[in-house]
Amino acid sequence: MATKNAFYAQSGGVSAVINASACGVIETARRHPDAIGTVFAGRNGILGALTEDLIDTGRESDAAIAALRHTPSGAFGSCRYKLRSPDQNRSEYERLMKVFEAHRIGYFFYNGGGDSADTCLKVSQLSETAGAPIQAIHVPKTVDNDLPVTDNSPGFGSVAKYIAVSTREASFDVRSMAKTSTKVFVLEVMGRHAGWIAAAGGLASDATTPIPIVILFPEVTFDRERFLAKVGSLVEEHGYCTVVVSEGVRNPDGRFLADQGLKDAFGHAQLGGVAPVVADIVREGLGLKYHWAVADYLQRSARHIASKTDVDQAYAMGTAAVELALAGKNSIMPTVVRKSSQPYVWEVGSVALSEVANVEKMMPGDFITEDGFGISEACREYLTPLIQGEDYPPYSNGLPDYVTLKNESVEKELPAFEL
Amino acid sequence: MATKNAFYAQSGGVSAVINASACGVIETARRHPDAIGTVFAGRNGILGALTEDLIDTGRESDAAIAALRHTPSGAFGSCRYKLRSPDQNRSEYERLMKVFEAHRIGYFFYNGGGDSADTCLKVSQLSETAGAPIQAIHVPKTVDNDLPVTDNSPGFGSVAKYIAVSTREASFDVRSMAKTSTKVFVLEVMGRHAGWIAAAGGLASDATTPIPIVILFPEVTFDRERFLAKVGSLVEEHGYCTVVVSEGVRNPDGRFLADQGLKDAFGHAQLGGVAPVVADIVREGLGLKYHWAVADYLQRSARHIASKTDVDQAYAMGTAAVELALAGKNSIMPTVVRKSSQPYVWEVGSVALSEVANVEKMMPGDFITEDGFGISEACREYLTPLIQGEDYPPYSNGLPDYVTLKNESVEKELPAFEL
Repeated sequence: MATKNAFYAQSGGVSAVINASACGVIETARRHPDAIGTVFAGRNGILGALTEDLIDTGRESDAAIAALRHTPSGAFGSCRYKLRSPDQNRSEYERLMKVFEAHRIGYFFYNGGGDSADTCLKVSQLSETAGAPIQAIHVPKTVDNDLPVTDNSPGFGSVAKYIAVSTREASFDVRSMAKTSTKVFVLEVMGRHAGWIAAAGGLASDATTPIPIVILFPEVTFDRERFLAKVGSLVEEHGYCTVVVSEGVRNPDGRFLADQGLKDAFGHAQLGGVAPVVADIVREGLGLKYHWAVADYLQRSARHIASKTDVDQAYAMGTAAVELALAGKNSIMPTVVRKSSQPYVWEVGSVALSEVANVEKMMPGDFITEDGFGISEACREYLTPLIQGEDYPPYSNGLPDYVTLKNESVEKELPAFEL
Repeated sequence: MATKNAFYAQSGGVSAVINASACGVIETARRHPDAIGTVFAGRNGILGALTEDLIDTGRESDAAIAALRHTPSGAFGSCRYKLRSPDQNRSEYERLMKVFEAHRIGYFFYNGGGDSADTCLKVSQLSETAGAPIQAIHVPKTVDNDLPVTDNSPGFGSVAKYIAVSTREASFDVRSMAKTSTKVFVLEVMGRHAGWIAAAGGLASDATTPIPIVILFPEVTFDRERFLAKVGSLVEEHGYCTVVVSEGVRNPDGRFLADQGLKDAFGHAQLGGVAPVVADIVREGLGLKYHWAVADYLQRSARHIASKTDVDQAYAMGTAAVELALAGKNSIMPTVVRKSSQPYVWEVGSVALSEVANVEKMMPGDFITEDGFGISEACREYLTPLIQGEDYPPYSNGLPDYVTLKNESVEKELPAFEL
């Protein structure tokens, strides 16, 4: 097999474990020097390919690459940039082919979510339509867990663990304070379209540690009166309760609940988070003292409390992507296949990219309880395996020892390209 | 020595390690059955004493008590309730004496911050002014780190570690996204009067992992133009920056920066957090894309990433409190005494409560850099030892295995008392 170089890039919102996939790609490629020469990483995702801003990962030590496994975020930089279709913007694809050719790149590994899968699919079609000798493999990643076919999307399990742990901890706190002070704690979590992350808050409560939790899903239209009745009855019974609210919750009129038409002293519109809105509804409707938190980036970067299952799967997806490439595959994505939930048994599978691109996996309706405020047993059975195991990073001087790579650029061969 | 019972209660805002102090008190008391009979815990702090709502900790297993060491929050419930002085409300003190007498309580252990130290001082004076045979010992606790004399307040080190770790992780995230998306991340932290917790955000950046961080301290009046200039120059140089903002930051007119005179669609005043306000200033002044988070209770309940130093010290304060009681002391508080910063060497000391009550320890002026946006080397030298070491709780089924005690009530001996 003739040696070809590989291109790897990170796309879209990063996660606690996307670098574990990068680690899987690069370490596996290094074990096949007969087939894969250098792995070039795109600086800031696909922009790196378009602008020929390539990072030579060959200049990173084995130790530095190994450290990617325990380092959150995107080590090479990510981007939010969607390639248009070849019909609309032929020049971008021609540019990609030129860059791949100039650097003898035969493998394209793209690490991202649904939009990225679409980009990867289009690149994969270059080998058919344009005769470019490129194999494009998508490496699944998204904290939103909305990629189809795969059991879950690497990145999600660690967010789920963070939210479940944090919800349990903060609930213990409010329970302590409830007699004379805070009775309701509101935690805002990510998930604009689907309630996967909000659902993870429900795991904080289980048979041995019951906690009164109300979940506000984007799948369930917000009903102020029913919500207040639910919170009121839980506080009546338990003395306190915790609300986990998805940023994507909407009012009956279809607007985001976070969009309250707030105006500052000068009359300028202000868009805050949804947590303070929900907290204020609790204050106004029930007169209860509250606290609220917005986890935002903390939830998706919290490598310090990553799920070991998630880290293992992220790494395995990177490894599998390279193995699929070496087996001559194109236009494909490795997947996690669930063989059993109890005990959790999974293996690596794969799916054609055409079945993945632009398909969003929503949460099944039966994952939400009848009243719309909790998770069902089916949901619990699905989620529980994904947060199993801890995979602590090494620490030095009290802080996690995360790696920052050298990220040295490859010399450019081509003239500049205007984006 | 005649056997006497002990009273223990938790006061004010709880922390990730206040239960470690409870563990220290109860385990040490159990080693001295000749001197200490039962440790009664106040349900919801001092309210438990006033209402004779006492929890018999003797009915908890050794394993359950040991598990307090790794369980965040206040296991017996806390309260925000400040006793007035005996001159103003004699009846409360008379009631306390009656409850102590009815349950043969000779030791009063009060676990809290500055206000609680004042309550503890007043109780300690009962033995002098009212002849009640009670020894009152204060066990230091506050995430605000504002207790005087002691090197630090147990609870603070774990919040500091959480904020330092989270700031590093989220900064890695925004660094990854900065090319095409978020360039500024804003994290709101606790600390209404002093910038101790905000300062901990500065630890996220060090020689091996430099991160552009701007800290907004309550000690430094907010200056919009200087702030924007600072953020702008850091983004210019590094491509991104992180802002750690204390909830207590104030405008030149003395109002909290969080108080923006926001009104909802109906004209009602809204008080949001300070993070969205700062984020909006960045958007308006620099046109940069931002994300913001509010850590709120997550920061002080995050036992999963507690500082081992903090846990050890919290436990040691509980142990020392009992030992001081057994040595016949009254009106006293054990302290952490720093012997050396590098290496960090500490021992247990003690201080008279009269020197602690109602004295607030502010952050030294030289802990803040000249420009007002960072921490000095002196600050770093002070803070670094406090976040050393990890002390992970046990996990089961993917979640921390925190204990909920039985908390069985002792039978009441007295008529009810109206608060």
